[in-house]
This record gives sequence, structure tokens and C-alpha cells, in this order.
Amino acid sequence: MALTEKEGRKRVVIEGITPAVDDGRFPVKRTVGDRVQVEADIFTDGHDAISATLLARREGAKKWIEIPMQTMGPGTDRWSATFRVAELGRYSFKVQGWVDHFVTWHRDLLKRIAAGTDAAVDYMIGADLLAAASERAAGRDASWLKERAELLRATAIATELRTQATDLKLFEAMLRYPDRRFVTESDREYSIVVDPVIARFSAWYEFFPRSTAAEPGKHGTFADCERRLPYVAEMGFNVVYLPPIHPIGVNFRKGRNNNPVSKPGDYGSPWAIGAAEGGHKAIHPDLGTLEEFQSFVKKAKELELAVALDIAFQAAPDHPYVKEHENWFKKRPDGTVQYAENPPKKYQDIYPFDFESEDWKGMWEELKSVFDYWLAQGITIFRVDNPHTKAFPFWTWVIPEIKREHPEALFLAEAFTRPKVMYRLAKVGFSQSYTYFPWRNEKAELTAYLTELAQTPVREFFRPNQWPNTPDILTEFLQAGGRAVFGIRLLLAATLGANYGIYGPAFELMEHEPVKRGGEEYLDSEKYEIRSWDLDRADSLRPLIARVNEIRNSNQALQNDWSIKFHACENDQLICYTKESPDGGNLILTIVNLDPDNTQSGFVTLPLEELQIPADRGYEAEDLLTGTRYLWNGPRNYLELNPAKLPGHILRIQRKLKVETDFDYFL
Amino acid sequence: MALTEKEGRKRVVIEGITPAVDDGRFPVKRTVGDRVQVEADIFTDGHDAISATLLARREGAKKWIEIPMQTMGPGTDRWSATFRVAELGRYSFKVQGWVDHFVTWHRDLLKRIAAGTDAAVDYMIGADLLAAASERAAGRDASWLKERAELLRATAIATELRTQATDLKLFEAMLRYPDRRFVTESDREYSIVVDPVIARFSAWYEFFPRSTAAEPGKHGTFADCERRLPYVAEMGFNVVYLPPIHPIGVNFRKGRNNNPVSKPGDYGSPWAIGAAEGGHKAIHPDLGTLEEFQSFVKKAKELELAVALDIAFQAAPDHPYVKEHENWFKKRPDGTVQYAENPPKKYQDIYPFDFESEDWKGMWEELKSVFDYWLAQGITIFRVDNPHTKAFPFWTWVIPEIKREHPEALFLAEAFTRPKVMYRLAKVGFSQSYTYFPWRNEKAELTAYLTELAQTPVREFFRPNQWPNTPDILTEFLQAGGRAVFGIRLLLAATLGANYGIYGPAFELMEHEPVKRGGEEYLDSEKYEIRSWDLDRADSLRPLIARVNEIRNSNQALQNDWSIKFHACENDQLICYTKESPDGGNLILTIVNLDPDNTQSGFVTLPLEELQIPADRGYEAEDLLTGTRYLWNGPRNYLELNPAKLPGHILRIQRKLKVETDFDYFL
Repeated sequence: MALTEKEGRKRVVIEGITPAVDDGRFPVKRTVGDRVQVEADIFTDGHDAISATLLARREGAKKWIEIPMQTMGPGTDRWSATFRVAELGRYSFKVQGWVDHFVTWHRDLLKRIAAGTDAAVDYMIGADLLAAASERAAGRDASWLKERAELLRATAIATELRTQATDLKLFEAMLRYPDRRFVTESDREYSIVVDPVIARFSAWYEFFPRSTAAEPGKHGTFADCERRLPYVAEMGFNVVYLPPIHPIGVNFRKGRNNNPVSKPGDYGSPWAIGAAEGGHKAIHPDLGTLEEFQSFVKKAKELELAVALDIAFQAAPDHPYVKEHENWFKKRPDGTVQYAENPPKKYQDIYPFDFESEDWKGMWEELKSVFDYWLAQGITIFRVDNPHTKAFPFWTWVIPEIKREHPEALFLAEAFTRPKVMYRLAKVGFSQSYTYFPWRNEKAELTAYLTELAQTPVREFFRPNQWPNTPDILTEFLQAGGRAVFGIRLLLAATLGANYGIYGPAFELMEHEPVKRGGEEYLDSEKYEIRSWDLDRADSLRPLIARVNEIRNSNQALQNDWSIKFHACENDQLICYTKESPDGGNLILTIVNLDPDNTQSGFVTLPLEELQIPADRGYEAEDLLTGTRYLWNGPRNYLELNPAKLPGHILRIQRKLKVETDFDYFL
Repeated sequence: MALTEKEGRKRVVIEGITPAVDDGRFPVKRTVGDRVQVEADIFTDGHDAISATLLARREGAKKWIEIPMQTMGPGTDRWSATFRVAELGRYSFKVQGWVDHFVTWHRDLLKRIAAGTDAAVDYMIGADLLAAASERAAGRDASWLKERAELLRATAIATELRTQATDLKLFEAMLRYPDRRFVTESDREYSIVVDPVIARFSAWYEFFPRSTAAEPGKHGTFADCERRLPYVAEMGFNVVYLPPIHPIGVNFRKGRNNNPVSKPGDYGSPWAIGAAEGGHKAIHPDLGTLEEFQSFVKKAKELELAVALDIAFQAAPDHPYVKEHENWFKKRPDGTVQYAENPPKKYQDIYPFDFESEDWKGMWEELKSVFDYWLAQGITIFRVDNPHTKAFPFWTWVIPEIKREHPEALFLAEAFTRPKVMYRLAKVGFSQSYTYFPWRNEKAELTAYLTELAQTPVREFFRPNQWPNTPDILTEFLQAGGRAVFGIRLLLAATLGANYGIYGPAFELMEHEPVKRGGEEYLDSEKYEIRSWDLDRADSLRPLIARVNEIRNSNQALQNDWSIKFHACENDQLICYTKESPDGGNLILTIVNLDPDNTQSGFVTLPLEELQIPADRGYEAEDLLTGTRYLWNGPRNYLELNPAKLPGHILRIQRKLKVETDFDYFL
């Protein structure tokens, strides 16, 4: 082991830096304006005092900003500091620590003075430390420290010496010029991706553009979609997401209800992308023109709705790529192109890209250009279809590459697959991810899953987007049908997930018939045909959805995932949790009856101290869904939820009821 | 991001490799003959099959040994393989994974055949894969694979084709020549330090050599020590550890009971190392000569006792280093050398080394040469005094540097300090470590602590050595005195710790008077004076210690720390745990009454299935301390322990009682 001149004397150890993903291999995720708390184990041998500093900068900036770190408690060896990520983009941070002989001297001197054992030599040592610091100091500080060093050497009267040596001004000045000759620096830099706030808090509404025509059976257009927008905006959503809007392949086109054979007049699946009219950068002629699409986007922005597009990297057999870039697809020995299959099932309407292509670089660039094209149209949110069937190195490259130019861009990973695969996609760059939420119905499994997502290191890279349904997923729970069933899943999604979404109008109209029992496909799925929806149906969940989104939009507690705490309730059909705003001022308690068929009741126990609710006064729980106010007292409170009326409470907790002394007139 | 020609197509992801310390920054620890189980998350995009391999080698070897990894279960994405570390020294390992198109093809073909959808083109694809493999193959395999490829192309009869394509011999041949063009390799190599078995399993006995003279008050010699050895060996210990054997400083020598002022005839503390006669490589003249020391070591070896020496890197004021290497010590402005202090306390008999010395390299080399000197005398075990007051970079350098030449060398860290500091010392190289065991008396705290040490990643680098007492630590529990008190701590140390030690004869003679209550110093401590011990006292714990060590030496279950499992007992004064041998054949259940004053009883509940005890038959628990045999049945069994007799059971479990069918004559 060769030793450089300094490293042998770098006595401080730095370990266990957080936040970090896989020890810094991947960036952690934050949103604009967040305060990032950095922690590290920092210590040295023996009893010398140490100092530590956090260095942070926006990526590309030349200068590091230094923030002194503070110990998190005696004996913990844990230090922390926070800084604010004020801008979109990437930040870096690292940590430094050093043995601080001045701080050691100062600490020990105070002990010696207290014990009356301070001796002349102790002040001489101090004088030397001051003189050395004056060499590192600039301007007035330099000469001032030098004078103070002389003073310590020259003063003979003990009381005066003590006063001089322990002067606060001197202490502060010395901290400005530490001796960092043997500073230890963390052995790597850690990255943070700072996304727009909508990455952390968003309510998504998905609809099929072709199902928006006023006249049943007619192909909807962007003009129809534009007319649909106020309906979505009034329900309080933030993102409107469209399945693919591109030309649909003709060869091997799927018929209704996923029939391998289509009939004339069948519209096919929007995910079978590409035809004579074009591919991933073209628009389906029946939907309209690029100008009409732009008008739709403009209207959405006016209504404060972001538009998300679906990016599905696969080609129908008649996609122009298939001819233009033969080598992006796998050829079989008989000269045919390899279609997608999961033997013995065949998906002949879909050609997957071959990520082992000799021309992978050319293909990557072209695929990136698809994002670039839609970014140029003002689209910044992409729901990526089945990213786990494309090579990981591609995502590892393309997402940071795009975000370098467009730090506002967001990518939602539609991967319903094994946990490690889903987590890897999030690590390499996806901003949000679909989750297993659709299949989590029981209290224990919801609690375990949400705890994993919100309370473990997973949260540093994986941002859940909770969907009760999608065009592919009509869960068995939803197939039971009815207002209570859909209400339960809505309340859970919208309060468990700061990010959530529904596939409508199927959701608000409680569409629940599957093609066949045991499967999750909708009967007469919009994926293969045009549907016409009666949005004004009297039993629509639209008002409830609007109320829930309004509550979300006006309560910061529901705009984050990390503050969730689950609370005890003896009845396993009642799930109970709180969330609060970063400043703690907004506290929301949600209770949901997971049983759609029966009234359930029980006592809920709140940890008052942890929630900072005074134990000696009453507090108020206001149901934001109904406006009812409950006066509660103590940790245990009785609840009864009739799912036929409303399957849950969203309660805003006012931590203490005011008494006479809270008012001005009292004094 | 620049991309090399291959990395874009490296589709396999490798993550979460274990065992590893701090993501591979430090080696994990094993002992000779261990099987190392390596695990990793390995997966790829989509549905292609993958293959993975573990590569391992002894450090310095040119060739990697490859061991195919196996999946640990569908959906886990976790793969594993094991290899044996047969020799002392360091090993390295890494992991490779690749998309395996042949395995994919084979898997899918079986599905196609089952569904009757296998087509000619599928066999053509297979033929191409075989042909490509034949290019990678050598000799007969190459031509044979080529032939088989031709056969697949030429065969027209479906049944024959199927037989040929799914031939096991072909499958095995193809696995020998995988296509690893786009292999992914773990992004670092991981290290393993392989120590002698005594690093994992050892019973230490510490005694002061100067207290061994037959005549009370006389200074013991190595010859006396040699005569003491059979006493130690007969108790079944494996390591005999001597406090420092070097000349003791005269200036500021400590008197009896740590008196800052010594009287003529006081012997001083062996840790105040160095005088006119020499320093860390010299022997205290009263103990004898180097030859006499060598004779002592030889005798110990004959008795299968390893000798451990104390290495305390500090100097008495009259240590030759102080004059010869002035710059290894801190000078104060008044020209004096900085003695050790913890203000306002002063330790003027000790000069610490200055690890910020300009000549740190020279100092490091000299300190290393102290180890080298004693290694040359055949000493391979070092108990290092207060390593946490020496700079971490020194240990990080010196231990691997020594072990490079002497992989058999072991280092026990005597650091009773904050957990992160203790763990760091273990990470950078210490083979064993003292622990907080002396102060863990209650069931909950023992369970929590042992679980942390044996069941978390801590165990990969930190090997506990459990001591109930040391010359510095007479705990308040021991101060209560009596056979039960000492018996409890002995049974716990010897069964909780595969490595444990006692400071004797103080321990077996139940020495328990402190200098003052509230402290942990022994009255009339051997650290400052010569003691004379009556080894033949009738109440000595010697027989119990001998029995316990005999049990340890003959039961593999007690020779490891990792297998420990704690079991339920309603009585909080009874602690109950099992350990088993690596092959599971030896199962030991220990139950200790933690209350030295009262008989305690209760039901112990064993998880029969987890312990592989058949639930439908009786089993036997044989108390190895007394020879009593208990016939038990079912998970719950009643126990009663009278500490006045014996405070614990060490029960060997025979998992099932034999019945008629277990014997040859039955059939």
C-alpha cells in the first residue's frame, strides 16, 4: 500500500452518508424547494474534537457552498446539515471532516478553568493556535488574530487571561479559519435529481381520445378532447394522460375484445403503433392534426392541466421503422421479423425493438428523438409503456440525457413486474412508478407496502403513483362493482398516494364487467374499440372525486408520501393513518372501511404525543368530505363507517381547542 | 455520456451483492474451510433467460474459478453460489451475468412443444444457436455441435426433431459454450479475509506473569508462568494472554491502587511501557530472558495453548523512543512532552504517540516492526490496547500489511468505546473485538445485542470476544460476588460467544471488591502490584470452567456465533437460546437463570419445526453440565433453576428418540 504524504494523517473517518441510493451509484430524488438533510457518521481516534462541513452545489457550478454540520447527539457520531434545492436539475454534495485542534483546546480549557487546573502552558498552546490561524486568515481577521495571540502570550493576570481566551468573538473568528491540512473527504460525490413539484404531488386522469365524440360510435378528435378538458379540470386533476395518439398498424390488427382477427371498421389498439401515415412522431389522422393537438395542449394549460403522453417503444408490422431500419428488429432464419411472444402466446401485431442490434446507437438516438419531438410540442410528462421490456442501459442513458436539456421532464414507468426490476427502473431515472397498489386490499398488506415505499430507503428513488384501475387492470376487487367498492379504492389511492391516477370515465362510471372472470381485462375494452360514455349519469362518482381532489389540493398534508403513519384500530376492516405537512401545521387523519358490504366500527388509537396533540385538552376532527366536526378527547375514539353512505373519513385535525387564555381579551 | 461499443448491449443488471462490508470497501471475514455463500440480484429486461456465474480466486492467483449461480426462487431475482475458502489469506470474488439466448430458446421450445405450436423456424433458430456455439467450442465439442446444428436443419420428421432439440447431452454441451459477448460484471471485486479457525472459536485466559511466583510477594518469572500453564490447559482454554511483558517506566510510576505517587518497591503498571532496559521489543528483566520467554511459548504450544501478547502503543517517559524520536511525540510550547490527559485528569506516566507527526511514516514502520519482532518469536495473536486512540489510517495500513506476510496473525481490539468506532476498527482489520457484553445483564438487552452481532451485516466484519471481566472491568454485577453471580456470567460468555475469555485467577477465585463503589477498578489491582493467588481454594470455579470448556470443545454448535436463536420463555429471568453446528447435527440449548439470588422457573417454548425436531415424537435434552437426561415432548417444557446449585443448563438436544423402526432388526 503506497501512502501519499497526507493520507496517513487524515485521522477523521466518514461513513454511512445519507441520503444515497446504492451507495451513491444513483441519484436521490427531490422536488424544487425541498430542504435536503444530509447525515453522516463522522469521528476520529481518541478524544480530539472534530468539525465537519457539508459541501453542495448545483451540477456544473464551480463553487461549492459550505454548510457547517452539527452533531446529532453525544455518542451518536452522527452529524447533519441541510440545504435547499432551489432549482430544477441536478445537485451534488459531499462531506468533509477534520480534527479541530482549536475546538479541542477551547473545550479542554473550559474544563481546566472549571477545575482550576489551567496553567500558563495551556495559554501558550492557545496562542500558537491563534498565530497559525492568523496565517490562514485574510485582511483584518489576520492581524486581529495575531494581536490576540500576542495578548495571550503577554498577559500575566490569570482572570484576564481566562476572559481573553474564552471570548466568544475569538471563538467565532477561529471557526472561520480551521486547519484543514489533514481534512478527510467522503470518497465520492452524491447526486440529487431535483424535479418539478408535480413529480411529488399529482392527480392523473387517463382517457382515450377516440372515445370523446359527442355522437356514439364516432371517432373522437382533439377538438372533442378539448371539450372534455373542463370536465377533467373541474374534478380537480393536475395531469391529463392520453394513450398513444399515433397511427395504428393494419397488419394483424386486433379486433374487439382482443380478438386476434379484426373486422373491417375495427380501430385496433393504440399501442400497435405505426402505419403508412407514420410512427411515433405522427398523429392518428382520425384524431386530427398537429395544430389541433397543440390547441388541445394549450387549452389544457389554461385549465392548469399538464398533458402526459404515452411512449410505447414497439412497432406495428407496418411501422415505417420496420422497412427503414430492418436491423432494429430481430430477423428469423426464414426472413420474417420476430414478433412479440410469450410462448405459446403470440402477439403478431407487435414487433419489439432488438436492443442487441448492431445499430443500437442509431436506434437509441432515434428513440430519444421521439421524446425530443414531443418535448418540442410542450409535452414534459411521459407515461412510458412497459419500460422493463427495453434494455436498462437505454433508460440509464436516455433519461439523464433528456433531463440535462429538460430538467422539467418527467417519466412515469408503467412496469407491473418483479420488485427489483421496478426499483431498478426508478433508480436509473424514472420519476414516478406504477405500483402494486391495485392488488393491495387488506389492512396488513396496505400497511406493509406503504411502509416499505414511504419509510425505507426505497423512498429516495422510487416515487409511487397509485392507480386503482388502468385500461389493463380491472382488479377482482373492482369487479365486485358498486359505489362502495370504487369509493374505497378512490379514497385509498388519493390519500395514500400524493401521486395517484384513475382511468376514466371507466372509473367514475364504475365500469366493472370483465371479459371473463379470473382475468383483469375490461369487457368491450377501449383498448380495442371506441366507447361512448354517459358522463352525466346520476350515479357517477364525479362529485366525490372532485371533493377528494379539492381536499388534496388544499391540504399540504396529502401532498407528500413520506409523513405517513399508520395507527392502531382493533377492527381489521378499518385502516387508519395520518399525514402531515412539512411544517407540521396541517395534519390529516384518514380512516377507510375496507369492507364494501358492511358497516364497520371500532376504536382508533392515536399516539397523541407523537402527533403533538396535547393530552390535556380536547381536539377537533373535521371531516372534509362531509363538513361534520367531531370533538375528540384522549387517544381512543370510536368510529363507525357505513360504506353505503361513505366508506371513509378524511379528517383535518385541529390539535387543540382554544380556551379563554388563547384570546387577546383574556389579558 | 460516452458509450463504448459493448456497454449499450449489456442487458443484465447485477445489484445487491452479499457478503460485503460497506459495499465492498472492506473485506468480509471467514475462517479456513468455510463455505462462502455469495448472493446477488441478477435480472434483465423482458422475458429472456439469463445465466450467471460466480468468479472467485485466492488473491494473487491468476485464474478465476467459475461456479455457476443458481436462482434462489422464481420472482426473487436472487441468485447464489458457494465456494470454499480452503487456505489462509485473502480471496476475491465477482459476479457475471448474461442474457442466455440458448437457454431462452430451449425453455420456450419446451412450451411450444407442449402446446403443439413448435414450427420449423423454431428449429432453424436453434440450429443457428448451435452453429454459433460450435465456433466458440474447442475440439470434439466444436465438430459435434456443428453436426447437431446440421441435423436440426436437415431433419424433416417432427418427432425426431423434438427429440434431437431437447436432448440433455446437447443442453449440457451448450451450457459449456455460452455467448458472453455482452456479459455484465459486478462493478467491483469483493474481498474476503480468511483467518485461522481460532479466530472464530477460542477461549482466552488472561493472567499477569509477575503474579505467578510460588512465594507470595515475589516477582513471577517466565519459568513460573511455564509452571502455571498446565493449570490453564487443564481448564480447556485455547489462548493464554499476557499483559505487557516489557520494562516499566520509572518516571511518574504509579503506586498501588493507581496512586499517582509510587513508593520504592512498587512495580508500576505493565502498560507504562519502556525504561532504560528498553521498550516494546524488550522483556522486563524480572520476568526473565528472551530464551525463557521462548521456552514458555514452546511449553504452551505443547499444551495446545496459543500465546497472545498485549500490544500497547504508548510510551512511559523513560521509553527509549522519547529520546530517539522526539518528533513522534507532541511538544508543548514550554519544551515538555505532552502526556496523556482527559482534562482535568492527567496521566503523566504515559506519552501518547502523535499520529500527526511529520515523521508518521517512520513511526508507522517502527510500530509495525514491533509486531514483526514478536511474530518472529512465534507469537501470532495480539491483543491491542486501546486501538481507538491511535489513528485509523495506521490500522488500515498495518494490519493488512502484516497479514500479507502472516495471514495467520490475529488482532483483538481492546476498544470499549462508541459502537461506530468499534465497528470501524473491525472493518479496517481487527480479527476479534471486545464487546459491551460485560454490561449486558438483562434478557432483553442480551437478546438485542447478540442479535445485532450475530444476525445483522455486522457479523461479516465484527467478531465478538465476550469477556465477563478484565483487569479494568469489575462490573457492578460481579461486585455482588458469589458463585451464582460468577457462574451466570461464565455460562453466558462461554455459550453466547464462540470466542470468550476471562481474566484469572481473579475470575475463578471470584475476586469482587472494588477500590470504591460506583467504579470498576479492582481493589489491590494487579495492574499496580503483584498478587499471590491461592489456586487450590475449595470454592474455586475451576471445575465448572473446565467442564464448560470441555463442552465447548466437544460441541461444534458452540463453536460459531451465527447460528444463535433466542426462544420464548415467559419468565424474564430465564434466557434461552440454541446454537447448532453448520451441518445441523449438533444442537445445543442453553438456559440461564439471570437472577443470582432466587430460584426461577417457567415454561420454555421451542419452535420445533424451525429446529427440525419432529413434533410427533419425544426428544431428549441431556444436560452436559450435570449429565442429567430429560425426556421432552412438544414445544413447551417446564424448567426450574436454582442458582445456588447451578444457574444454567447446557442441553444437548437429540432430535428424536429412536423407535423400533430405527433399528436394523425391525425389517
